[in-house]
Amino acid sequence: MMTAKTLSIAEICTLLGLGPDVAADVSAKIVRVSGFADATVDSVVFAENRAALQDALRSAAGLILARSDDGTHDARLLVVDNPRYAFALCARALGQTRSGSEIHPAAVVDPTATLGERVRIGPCAVIEAGAMLGDDVEIGSGAKVLAGARLGDRVVLQAGAVVGATGFGYVRNPTTGEHALFPQQGTVVIEDDVEIGANSTIDRGALGETRIGRGTKIDNLVHVGHNCSIGRNVLIAAQVGISGSCVVEDGAVLAGQVGLGDHVSLGPGVILGGSAGVFPGKRLEGRGEMFMGVPAEPLKQYLKTMARVRRLGRAGGSGKES
Amino acid sequence: MMTAKTLSIAEICTLLGLGPDVAADVSAKIVRVSGFADATVDSVVFAENRAALQDALRSAAGLILARSDDGTHDARLLVVDNPRYAFALCARALGQTRSGSEIHPAAVVDPTATLGERVRIGPCAVIEAGAMLGDDVEIGSGAKVLAGARLGDRVVLQAGAVVGATGFGYVRNPTTGEHALFPQQGTVVIEDDVEIGANSTIDRGALGETRIGRGTKIDNLVHVGHNCSIGRNVLIAAQVGISGSCVVEDGAVLAGQVGLGDHVSLGPGVILGGSAGVFPGKRLEGRGEMFMGVPAEPLKQYLKTMARVRRLGRAGGSGKES
Amino acid sequence: MMTAKTLSIAEICTLLGLGPDVAADVSAKIVRVSGFADATVDSVVFAENRAALQDALRSAAGLILARSDDGTHDARLLVVDNPRYAFALCARALGQTRSGSEIHPAAVVDPTATLGERVRIGPCAVIEAGAMLGDDVEIGSGAKVLAGARLGDRVVLQAGAVVGATGFGYVRNPTTGEHALFPQQGTVVIEDDVEIGANSTIDRGALGETRIGRGTKIDNLVHVGHNCSIGRNVLIAAQVGISGSCVVEDGAVLAGQVGLGDHVSLGPGVILGGSAGVFPGKRLEGRGEMFMGVPAEPLKQYLKTMARVRRLGRAGGSGKES
Repeated sequence: MMTAKTLSIAEICTLLGLGPDVAADVSAKIVRVSGFADATVDSVVFAENRAALQDALRSAAGLILARSDDGTHDARLLVVDNPRYAFALCARALGQTRSGSEIHPAAVVDPTATLGERVRIGPCAVIEAGAMLGDDVEIGSGAKVLAGARLGDRVVLQAGAVVGATGFGYVRNPTTGEHALFPQQGTVVIEDDVEIGANSTIDRGALGETRIGRGTKIDNLVHVGHNCSIGRNVLIAAQVGISGSCVVEDGAVLAGQVGLGDHVSLGPGVILGGSAGVFPGKRLEGRGEMFMGVPAEPLKQYLKTMARVRRLGRAGGSGKES
Repeated sequence: MMTAKTLSIAEICTLLGLGPDVAADVSAKIVRVSGFADATVDSVVFAENRAALQDALRSAAGLILARSDDGTHDARLLVVDNPRYAFALCARALGQTRSGSEIHPAAVVDPTATLGERVRIGPCAVIEAGAMLGDDVEIGSGAKVLAGARLGDRVVLQAGAVVGATGFGYVRNPTTGEHALFPQQGTVVIEDDVEIGANSTIDRGALGETRIGRGTKIDNLVHVGHNCSIGRNVLIAAQVGISGSCVVEDGAVLAGQVGLGDHVSLGPGVILGGSAGVFPGKRLEGRGEMFMGVPAEPLKQYLKTMARVRRLGRAGGSGKES
Repeated sequence: MMTAKTLSIAEICTLLGLGPDVAADVSAKIVRVSGFADATVDSVVFAENRAALQDALRSAAGLILARSDDGTHDARLLVVDNPRYAFALCARALGQTRSGSEIHPAAVVDPTATLGERVRIGPCAVIEAGAMLGDDVEIGSGAKVLAGARLGDRVVLQAGAVVGATGFGYVRNPTTGEHALFPQQGTVVIEDDVEIGANSTIDRGALGETRIGRGTKIDNLVHVGHNCSIGRNVLIAAQVGISGSCVVEDGAVLAGQVGLGDHVSLGPGVILGGSAGVFPGKRLEGRGEMFMGVPAEPLKQYLKTMARVRRLGRAGGSGKES
């Protein structure tokens, strides 16, 4: 059973760690987060800059989160350091709560699987033999948790995601050229608060385990190969491909379509720009340092190289091949 | 119930906008489009060049669509401007028609979803709460239309495609490094005549909407992020990744594995070559102009740069790092 | 019904083509392959180098496959040319055997589909009309074999894979800009011993067929377009995209995220490095020759070009655009 929540502005102030001496009218009740266009008197909206604040003030919202009051004296304003983050916290606090599990009758849950409390499993989702799901897990329509995979609390699998498929490890017979499957009998562990996007695939380990660390968020159509170890609070954007046995440490950020060869290692907080590629066995380090290109190099170096390459292309002459 | 069609060659002439004074034998009946090898007397085939015409003439086809008669006097020949396009029109006209809806008993349709006329939904497909499907929609096996998504008329979702998943938007807590989900409560609208390939994913908007314009065709394993606006008659090939809040205007063409960073904008008719990448926030313009590379540059410039870079690599000397 | 196997070390020697005059204790019984950490007395492990051999000797394994005895006289040692390959053969020989088919009650098999002996079909998998599956085929949870697709013996489809979707072929109406679907009525043939990863998509031919040759292994999230002809014993890593009408000959290797434009042709044994791209219509040749980059060039040339480009970027001066 689902219950929607209502918060007073006073409660929102507490949630955001603000004292009661704020400008806003603390008596109003808020029930939803909204964009400007569809805001109503019981909506909270946010404004990250001056222009957005003007839009917010013109909206019907009952509460406006903004970085500064910008000289405006509107009782709906609440000044916060990070309006976008405060807005996300409000959304979470206003979210529906669930008092029991909801297993869709068209979901398929193996009798040997173990489910925590308040689990939600959508239609045509499959939970195979021996899989373990923690509390408050959400499994989207048609997602698959394969045999023996283990999911922590509050893990979200979006529609069509597959956790625990056989890794891609083969040994070539040098005489016949045939490929024999290397045994893929390991496990996969998804820690608490991990979210995995639609149609993404996380393979299980060959002999050991594949592990996705607590709080890591993974977008759609991402591939994580066998025996990878992904740290905590990592962000992995759509269509990233991580080959087998990679290590990605805490807080790293991988933009869309990044590719890591096998046995790549990324230090804590490393950032890889869109479409960057790292060759097998390499290690990149530097908290907050951005790498770009294939093979990936530090941003500053990449931009310098790019500028010179393009200058080459623009230099006089025919450009014909020698 | 399904019904196959038969067309006389006279009817095909009308379909293609041709007068009755054509060389072909208008009395024959055509029931299918075929390749040369499996053509029979009731097949139509097409020939785009002289060599193909010879193959076509040797086949058993009852009707041959060709650009020119090439001096041949065969009563089966029908000369048209664009044989491939004429062939596609014949295929459509000869296609089966459906007089009612066909919902497979193993499909899961939420009672609050709204379905148009002559809808086809395959086994293990899921239509979630509040979703709306127009007339003549086809949902392939295991495809998912998530809560609140809206599909126009004649939309095709191939097997495993997911429309309406939660977008990838997080706000980082600067103190703890944890990522809070930005609210993803918007909608997704798929306009008439859009086709979406197998296992592709189209996310819904965060606060607003994601929209795919009329007549746009999307291949397999494509990702379209939250709040994107894709225009009409756009072609998006396999494994293209479009980050959040991109705008792609009418008639653009994105070849395989193209990647767009967030807030990228492509003008009408822009063409991106295979594996091209566009960095966040950039705009490219030029109807029919092709861009290549990462970051994408106009084709002419790209080819010049490439030629000079390769010449560098071939220049004398050791090639060793300095 | 499933039966686990036990092999004596003598039987393993026969399996590996070794005579009875080996150092190992041939009386022991082996029931599983293991990693060092979880090995028990009835496990076989393997060691590829000196360090691994020390770990193996410290483990509880009953049989150790190694390249050399390295001066050690341990009765558990079996010296083989290729320990990893020997280990994979043991795993296969120890694998469970199945005496009958297992069709999960939540699988959907069209009555007109044809199934071989000992077929396994997981929950929410779909086998559409007219599809043909050989003996010992395994269809993972939620995988889809679409209408008319043909799978040989021992083919494995992992969870969510889609075989036989409509290809991406459209003809543009030059007047209206609309795209008409080119007829996609061909077939797809997957030969014996092919394995296809989770959420990968193999389209059927337009008029002819798409074919994946015997023994080819395909990783997750791979796309193979319509009318491709993939040879035998090809390896295709995750997120590779192969456009329509490509030819990939026997024994080629495509690393992760490689992209082939349409009508590309790869000769036997060609190797493409991670993220390499080949432009439409090109042919690459050379058994065991590696190609890298976009557009792909021979490894030696690629490395030379890269070194010079990077040297450019590091040269003195401001790096500013001219």
